[in-house]
Amino acid sequence: MTSAPNPNSFDAMTTARQLAAQFAETARERDVAGGTPKAERDALRQSGLLALSIPRELGGHGATWSETLDVVRQLAMVDSSVAHVLGFHHLMLATVRLFAQPAQWQPWLAQTAAQHLFWGNALNPLDQRTVVEVIDGVRTFNGQKSFCSGASDSQMLIASAIDRAAGGRLLIAAIPTSRTGITLHDDWDNIGQRQTDSGSASFDAVRVEDHELLLDPGPLSTPFACLRPLIAQLHFTHLFLGIAEGALAEARQYTLQQSRPWLRAKVEQASDDPYVLRHYGEFWVALEGVRLLVQRAAQQLDQAWAEGEALGAEQRGQLAVSIATAKVAASRSGLDICNRLFEVTGARATQAALRLDRYWRNLRVQTLHDPLDYKLHELGEWALKRVLPTPSFYS
Amino acid sequence: MTSAPNPNSFDAMTTARQLAAQFAETARERDVAGGTPKAERDALRQSGLLALSIPRELGGHGATWSETLDVVRQLAMVDSSVAHVLGFHHLMLATVRLFAQPAQWQPWLAQTAAQHLFWGNALNPLDQRTVVEVIDGVRTFNGQKSFCSGASDSQMLIASAIDRAAGGRLLIAAIPTSRTGITLHDDWDNIGQRQTDSGSASFDAVRVEDHELLLDPGPLSTPFACLRPLIAQLHFTHLFLGIAEGALAEARQYTLQQSRPWLRAKVEQASDDPYVLRHYGEFWVALEGVRLLVQRAAQQLDQAWAEGEALGAEQRGQLAVSIATAKVAASRSGLDICNRLFEVTGARATQAALRLDRYWRNLRVQTLHDPLDYKLHELGEWALKRVLPTPSFYS
Amino acid sequence: MTSAPNPNSFDAMTTARQLAAQFAETARERDVAGGTPKAERDALRQSGLLALSIPRELGGHGATWSETLDVVRQLAMVDSSVAHVLGFHHLMLATVRLFAQPAQWQPWLAQTAAQHLFWGNALNPLDQRTVVEVIDGVRTFNGQKSFCSGASDSQMLIASAIDRAAGGRLLIAAIPTSRTGITLHDDWDNIGQRQTDSGSASFDAVRVEDHELLLDPGPLSTPFACLRPLIAQLHFTHLFLGIAEGALAEARQYTLQQSRPWLRAKVEQASDDPYVLRHYGEFWVALEGVRLLVQRAAQQLDQAWAEGEALGAEQRGQLAVSIATAKVAASRSGLDICNRLFEVTGARATQAALRLDRYWRNLRVQTLHDPLDYKLHELGEWALKRVLPTPSFYS
Amino acid sequence: MTSAPNPNSFDAMTTARQLAAQFAETARERDVAGGTPKAERDALRQSGLLALSIPRELGGHGATWSETLDVVRQLAMVDSSVAHVLGFHHLMLATVRLFAQPAQWQPWLAQTAAQHLFWGNALNPLDQRTVVEVIDGVRTFNGQKSFCSGASDSQMLIASAIDRAAGGRLLIAAIPTSRTGITLHDDWDNIGQRQTDSGSASFDAVRVEDHELLLDPGPLSTPFACLRPLIAQLHFTHLFLGIAEGALAEARQYTLQQSRPWLRAKVEQASDDPYVLRHYGEFWVALEGVRLLVQRAAQQLDQAWAEGEALGAEQRGQLAVSIATAKVAASRSGLDICNRLFEVTGARATQAALRLDRYWRNLRVQTLHDPLDYKLHELGEWALKRVLPTPSFYS
Repeated sequence: MTSAPNPNSFDAMTTARQLAAQFAETARERDVAGGTPKAERDALRQSGLLALSIPRELGGHGATWSETLDVVRQLAMVDSSVAHVLGFHHLMLATVRLFAQPAQWQPWLAQTAAQHLFWGNALNPLDQRTVVEVIDGVRTFNGQKSFCSGASDSQMLIASAIDRAAGGRLLIAAIPTSRTGITLHDDWDNIGQRQTDSGSASFDAVRVEDHELLLDPGPLSTPFACLRPLIAQLHFTHLFLGIAEGALAEARQYTLQQSRPWLRAKVEQASDDPYVLRHYGEFWVALEGVRLLVQRAAQQLDQAWAEGEALGAEQRGQLAVSIATAKVAASRSGLDICNRLFEVTGARATQAALRLDRYWRNLRVQTLHDPLDYKLHELGEWALKRVLPTPSFYS
Repeated sequence: MTSAPNPNSFDAMTTARQLAAQFAETARERDVAGGTPKAERDALRQSGLLALSIPRELGGHGATWSETLDVVRQLAMVDSSVAHVLGFHHLMLATVRLFAQPAQWQPWLAQTAAQHLFWGNALNPLDQRTVVEVIDGVRTFNGQKSFCSGASDSQMLIASAIDRAAGGRLLIAAIPTSRTGITLHDDWDNIGQRQTDSGSASFDAVRVEDHELLLDPGPLSTPFACLRPLIAQLHFTHLFLGIAEGALAEARQYTLQQSRPWLRAKVEQASDDPYVLRHYGEFWVALEGVRLLVQRAAQQLDQAWAEGEALGAEQRGQLAVSIATAKVAASRSGLDICNRLFEVTGARATQAALRLDRYWRNLRVQTLHDPLDYKLHELGEWALKRVLPTPSFYS
Repeated sequence: MTSAPNPNSFDAMTTARQLAAQFAETARERDVAGGTPKAERDALRQSGLLALSIPRELGGHGATWSETLDVVRQLAMVDSSVAHVLGFHHLMLATVRLFAQPAQWQPWLAQTAAQHLFWGNALNPLDQRTVVEVIDGVRTFNGQKSFCSGASDSQMLIASAIDRAAGGRLLIAAIPTSRTGITLHDDWDNIGQRQTDSGSASFDAVRVEDHELLLDPGPLSTPFACLRPLIAQLHFTHLFLGIAEGALAEARQYTLQQSRPWLRAKVEQASDDPYVLRHYGEFWVALEGVRLLVQRAAQQLDQAWAEGEALGAEQRGQLAVSIATAKVAASRSGLDICNRLFEVTGARATQAALRLDRYWRNLRVQTLHDPLDYKLHELGEWALKRVLPTPSFYS
Repeated sequence: MTSAPNPNSFDAMTTARQLAAQFAETARERDVAGGTPKAERDALRQSGLLALSIPRELGGHGATWSETLDVVRQLAMVDSSVAHVLGFHHLMLATVRLFAQPAQWQPWLAQTAAQHLFWGNALNPLDQRTVVEVIDGVRTFNGQKSFCSGASDSQMLIASAIDRAAGGRLLIAAIPTSRTGITLHDDWDNIGQRQTDSGSASFDAVRVEDHELLLDPGPLSTPFACLRPLIAQLHFTHLFLGIAEGALAEARQYTLQQSRPWLRAKVEQASDDPYVLRHYGEFWVALEGVRLLVQRAAQQLDQAWAEGEALGAEQRGQLAVSIATAKVAASRSGLDICNRLFEVTGARATQAALRLDRYWRNLRVQTLHDPLDYKLHELGEWALKRVLPTPSFYS
């Protein structure tokens, strides 16, 4: 999962590793506490990683998606909450680039790079409770929205609402989080991904200007615009892989340093136990396959992104298949590793201070974003009938 | 898993169900809090369930092991910590019956029934830090002991120490928890089974009288005495099954009442989704097999117990095979269900208030008591070579 | 899987074991040859096993279904083709008892017992090419029928045809195999179950008398009549278990007597290899669960059968669930064992003379009778919604 | 799995596809017949594929290992026996290049290219029955050798013998198959890979000249020489992948064209059944991972091969890990697909004429070459302890 270094550029991976080392020190206690990881979000702001995917001409680092998502994976090894909100920040930046005009997104991106703005998400197409209302001639968003990852402590928000007057059309807008009428409820308290602030928001007569709407070309309009959900899916896949790699790395250290051989094992050290070795062998085989699938999908995304509006539906569809394949493999192998790692560490590794269960809890929560069963269904349609996935906010 | 009702007896299962309903109300918050479940332990004391396995002639209810462990399973569906300490209490009572003389254990059991004494465990044969020392002519236990489940808030304790003067012999004693020199550290803080008080104890010149030692016939001495580890293993198996059944029951209610069909599923309700149904079908097949294996093993234990000292090594070995078989099946299917249940409930079921992850955490911790890999090894020796398991504290 | 011996009765299990030993001697060569196992069918005729399930008052041995199907399982360990046609013979006898009146089936059963008649199957409800035609005022069956197991070398046949004049009603009849117009094509040549004669038949103006029709109560009419498909399903389940047990028994002898330890294994004998032992441990756990599920289902069938027309839909449904559960478990564990056994025997065990692959081929073919996926679906509906299976020819 | 085309070269892949199409026509009947595929071997001779890996300067096509093994994979999709003997032919050519001096192997390779010589294998290091004897001052090989793949109908043979006088040293020689004293027994009759001629050979005073011995640098002497077993292992991996791809391709055509929807499925075509789609989705995910693992390992082999004697132990070890990883994944996913494909085709696909079981039989036999369990063990040592595999004839 190495990216060729760019001599002229910001060294994103070194920065990511340094942040990861720093975040690792408090990851366990923050897993207990939940809430907004303010210090870590500020560290991300100062690190320059918020500008990672922003083009150089707009003041960013011009990283590819491979590079950007590899940073997410690296952070996810120790802190998959912070990794998630960073990845979603870049997904929001991609959203404005894919759904709106350069005259709109170029200033936003330049401002983001210059001022270290953090973007959050309030675009959940399955939750249709927020609607457009025209109040005194002004377009406003009104209602509730759930699963608003990274909205707390953000400067900008991508929000959506149903425009009933336009036949139920989905309107998406980029607006300042501080806009009057927006309330973030800080009510995310879940079993995993506890610092992603994926709680709910209320919109009470929130004014939305024309130039804030992402209408041209608009959501899921062209094959290129349809890259948006694929970036989201590949982001998840990097998260899953990072979590599994982090879990395995910590388990490995425990087995080597702490585990004791079982009384019936005829070995001196747990690390020589044939069954322990077998588990590690299986973990390795699974993760190696995932790493290659993830790497290939990221390279294909870079290629598709480079096509811009010239991207065809076929190429976009092939990318969707590659990403779905990687996601299924990453989900399954990751859950297996995060569950089974305790069988290679032993009972004493369940002490709460280690919080080794956080890998499973984080992965379990995030892998439920959309059902694995329907990813397999989609891949089955491709494998059997050569039917490419129909673009949607989840495919 | 029904037991024929005994018209003359205490209705243990009804009592268990009532307690389960009561414990369920606070199980989530107590999972957060950890610590000693004092109210629930007192409720167990008052319920009569501490006397469940005690013979009627000694004031108990004379329940079989099938009945006793089925109560454990029933409680484990909602609170596997409380279920564990109850089961271990009965294991401690079995320990004195199996390792000592009637003149010793009859008074202990009678007293336990009469005074609702709770027994705890400080017998961890893998932890050899507690040793026998003769101080001023008095035998004392000295040192540390880990994994002392149910020791806190107990009246009686079964403790062990290594007697170096006797060639490293393991001495086991039944002593009052209040005996001078015993300190329970209340330091159990693990990712699951959080109210089992399985922390550490210190023994500082703890006097142990001759009549408190379990020497005749002593630990693992006869096939009948060797039932002790099998009762422990079958207790675990009932816990595992109960946890899985509880997880499935709660998942089922969620799917029926809360889950939403996925947007690509061509169904009105999540409960009609073909993939959701497939998961439930697989859960069912797995649990049904486990239920029958557990039931058979419990019946065989009842038969072996009834043999008393006439029990032969062959029958004891067959029972060991049955119990190991049930335990492996219960561990594997339970972990699968507790992990996969989220795929039939969906992302919203990860909210912390539900604490649906506690089933996986509880089962994950408890299934690490001794390695599954070596149970399979043992069963392989039986299946291939017809070699019965060698009795030990784990087989 | 033991049945209590009946002192007054024919010792079916001893007979089955003797026949199994005899059939085993030629099973490999007959697997190569395919075709009708004439000598073995005649041995079954002479053994009395064709009269096993026939009531004593009609000259049979009055065996329960548990006993009858246990004989099928026993034979399936060495020859699942012959086991299948024997089981289907008894299924045909059950069919006339369940779908017709005593005045019809009593003479048929008496004659079967007295003359050692062998019954075959030409009732495939999914193949609707055979239709009823009235020719010169005579009802005749006309057309093709596939998957006619055990029809060759049979004396009686159960055949079905669609009566278009009666709105597509399915008519089922018991007729002599020698009836004019019936042609059995001896065209079964499949990868497994090679001596089941499950080929096709042609019906060319085959006269069917009124008294030969199974109309009262008719197919799938009452809960009791609906036992017919359940007997078929439980028969399959016994076949699957028998095949897996036979495979494991042969693999075990090979590992013990022929396998060599791998050069990296630090053991003297293959049977001490930790990974070999693990495989056997897993095989054991799986088969033990299946054995109990099969045994329970058979006992429940005996109880349901004893109810006769008093059998209610609820009890029939519970039996359907038990049988489906056992069938899924037997299919999955059996396929795993028949595939994986080579990993505990080694490369030399693939020599054709041993034909160790026949277990997998036989099981693979027979488990496709109806899809496992839809059995899981059915069980999911029960586990989740408490909806019992809707009776059909497959449920 | 595409290789960049070489404009100056023989188009190996087109040739392979044409041969595959030709071999496919008779693959089923040859699977029945077994024996030496003389016509297909001659077609390979005429195709130029025997010279594929031979350097251009020696008259060959100068293909990389990626290209050579991709041809093996392509042929294995329809005929894994012929694919195996072709791959082993190239392995034999690699053996002389790795174990002997250019003055020895250059003439052999030039002659092989010019005369379309086919090389066979009589080097089975586990079978130590063939020994060196000096008779009248002449070195001779004497004894038996098993698993001599591709020896029949070959012109050259690589044979091994134990030299007891030299402390049990393994001597390997390249000799003409027609050399006096060599008898090939044509006794390979196994359940799969039926036309690989992997039978036994006898050596009766077979003269071996000094210049025929592969002594400098000799077997497994340097990291570069230690590539020999890795080429063998990667060859197997390509075979396994090819078999699985061929099985899936044939299953897919069957599902699309022949399978019928199950009566309970609410779909018009089997290819719309949600469970059928799920199986195909799972097959796809598994095979995609294997394809990438295989491709990477082949590229790493090309790089290692290019290093020549400069190859270091570390790079050789990393390659061994990559190949072992790919092999485990290919074995497991392949066996699953070859077994489960019947669940997406249905009962009628078991007719012998299709011989769809040959994929499983071929894969089952070939995957037993050396135990998967010890590959996992080896990978576990790497994953846990960062210990690279110790070179041997199997690692």
